[in-house]
Amino acid sequence: MAMRAIKFSKGQLEYLDQSRLPSKEVWRQCRTIEQGYEAIKSLQVRGAPLIGVFAAYCACINMRRLPSDKRGFIKNFFKSLEYLKKCRPTAVNLSWALDKLKEVVCSGQGKTINQIKKEILRQAIDIHKEDVLLCRRIARNGLPLIKAGDRILTHCNAGLLATSGSGTALGVIYEAGHKHKNIVVYADETRPLLQGVRLSAWELGKNKIKSFVVCDSSAAFLMQQGRINKVIVGADRIAANGDTANKIGTHAVAIAAQYHGIPFYIAAPSSTFDLSLSGGEQIPIEKRPGKEIRQIQGKIKVASPKINVYNLAFDVTPHKLIKAIITDKGIISAPFNKNISKVLSNK
Amino acid sequence: MAMRAIKFSKGQLEYLDQSRLPSKEVWRQCRTIEQGYEAIKSLQVRGAPLIGVFAAYCACINMRRLPSDKRGFIKNFFKSLEYLKKCRPTAVNLSWALDKLKEVVCSGQGKTINQIKKEILRQAIDIHKEDVLLCRRIARNGLPLIKAGDRILTHCNAGLLATSGSGTALGVIYEAGHKHKNIVVYADETRPLLQGVRLSAWELGKNKIKSFVVCDSSAAFLMQQGRINKVIVGADRIAANGDTANKIGTHAVAIAAQYHGIPFYIAAPSSTFDLSLSGGEQIPIEKRPGKEIRQIQGKIKVASPKINVYNLAFDVTPHKLIKAIITDKGIISAPFNKNISKVLSNK
Repeated sequence: MAMRAIKFSKGQLEYLDQSRLPSKEVWRQCRTIEQGYEAIKSLQVRGAPLIGVFAAYCACINMRRLPSDKRGFIKNFFKSLEYLKKCRPTAVNLSWALDKLKEVVCSGQGKTINQIKKEILRQAIDIHKEDVLLCRRIARNGLPLIKAGDRILTHCNAGLLATSGSGTALGVIYEAGHKHKNIVVYADETRPLLQGVRLSAWELGKNKIKSFVVCDSSAAFLMQQGRINKVIVGADRIAANGDTANKIGTHAVAIAAQYHGIPFYIAAPSSTFDLSLSGGEQIPIEKRPGKEIRQIQGKIKVASPKINVYNLAFDVTPHKLIKAIITDKGIISAPFNKNISKVLSNK
Repeated sequence: MAMRAIKFSKGQLEYLDQSRLPSKEVWRQCRTIEQGYEAIKSLQVRGAPLIGVFAAYCACINMRRLPSDKRGFIKNFFKSLEYLKKCRPTAVNLSWALDKLKEVVCSGQGKTINQIKKEILRQAIDIHKEDVLLCRRIARNGLPLIKAGDRILTHCNAGLLATSGSGTALGVIYEAGHKHKNIVVYADETRPLLQGVRLSAWELGKNKIKSFVVCDSSAAFLMQQGRINKVIVGADRIAANGDTANKIGTHAVAIAAQYHGIPFYIAAPSSTFDLSLSGGEQIPIEKRPGKEIRQIQGKIKVASPKINVYNLAFDVTPHKLIKAIITDKGIISAPFNKNISKVLSNK
């Protein structure tokens, strides 16, 4: 479980290039904010909680390039935050983390520029530490929902590689795996970028959890055949009514789960909630290049460039398909509109 | 529309190697029954109706290798049919076509061996011609279900490449495309073997139908967004109650369609019905090698060979999710148990 996806030490930011997994474990140094932006954009660093932590560090390593006068520093620091926020639109953890850095500046009136820089850095490190802690709490809170013998479907990767801790959906599964010996995970391969087969199957194996990779489209039939009795996935943004954006395909899994009477759970830290949005239709959905589908890993061309492709990276699962949301502050069930604000206000 | 997937002329059987599409149009000659078996097994020749026609020709080209005494010939000819039947278990058209050749022999008592051989060959050619005709009738029968402006989802490939005619599901769409100018097709890419992006998008383009390729997992969300208003897919075997085996992922699409109130249609020739099975749970489902998921087209390894994979080639859609089955004999709606036998008995 000591596996980590990013490292920050003595002002140096390093990350595991997830686009090379599982065949190669390549660590890269992130020297500039532009490199950081590209690492997130190209999904070398991915997973909603992780990109929040990573982007906060990217803003920190960029501080050394900014003007040394306070006004110039603040103006350009804010610009750097806006730049990073634009990188990927759906996961709210990105802007959540960057807004936390902004707050440090806003509440730093009367402080010297060096003090402000130190506090920004401390805030980034706190966000990182907090993410580890939130994963631990999610895992503990989710544990009672898992029973011995459960056969759990997950979609995409919401594990060690998607957070700076033990994961959200997979964090719950790892915790349950310590307690119960016979947990089986079905990991959707997760087209187009194959995070399920490349990342989830890889880390489940490293953590000694029995798993099977399946095509995304097969989950519904596996439910019908009695091979799956629970679903747990992560989230990229959760609206005030519980509607949840997550990797494309999550919505289909949730519908199939409801049809077969199988409980469908979201696992996410409180940083994933966006209470400024009343419903999921307001969540921006990232559209990605067609070549992610026309080509496999940029190598094999499965279709001509003339073929039209419609490639949404995320979808929104309506709250009525969700049995409960497992958070660091507790488990939230319907009515979500009322219970989300109630549980999130817990200390 | 003159594009064809197999050719039989002067005793020579040739086929378009569909595993090479769309990047290369490679025609191969099938010289032995073993080559034919491998061509079907490896999906160089695929599509339920097409493999029926192709297998019938494979049995014919094998006749020259069989003993010249009548008893020896019949015994070995029957063996060759059993051999071909085992090739792929789910699509019933394969055994349907081979059983038709068997009937020729069984009703050929008193005939010379040369007469029997001629009649077998004539039967194979008739099966081929009939398949073309059935496609034409399916297209015509399905036409009233399609309106101008329809946005139709299809899964896998049930087109020119899956039949010896214009296709089943895509056949209806091509017919509608002649009548209405603004039909749009969403083609599921269809993991693991990508028949949707490689084959359907390719032939839709050749036939001037506007299409978008999408990840299999995205269909449910596209329905929610109003981008899809109808679903038409092919079939590999239909039980007496209407339960339908088709490419893995069809069941998930049918559930999502029902959830969004979108009609879900099957298009298939009468040779796809297996009235000996009362329900879909009796349909044998082919399990295929895990490497189809672990590797992309045998080239890119996306997971270690140690990763467990559960790779079903087909699933079964329960009849209650099906709005209607478009056949060469007419459109069949619920109650299927009654109406299937009624419509199929039409001359």
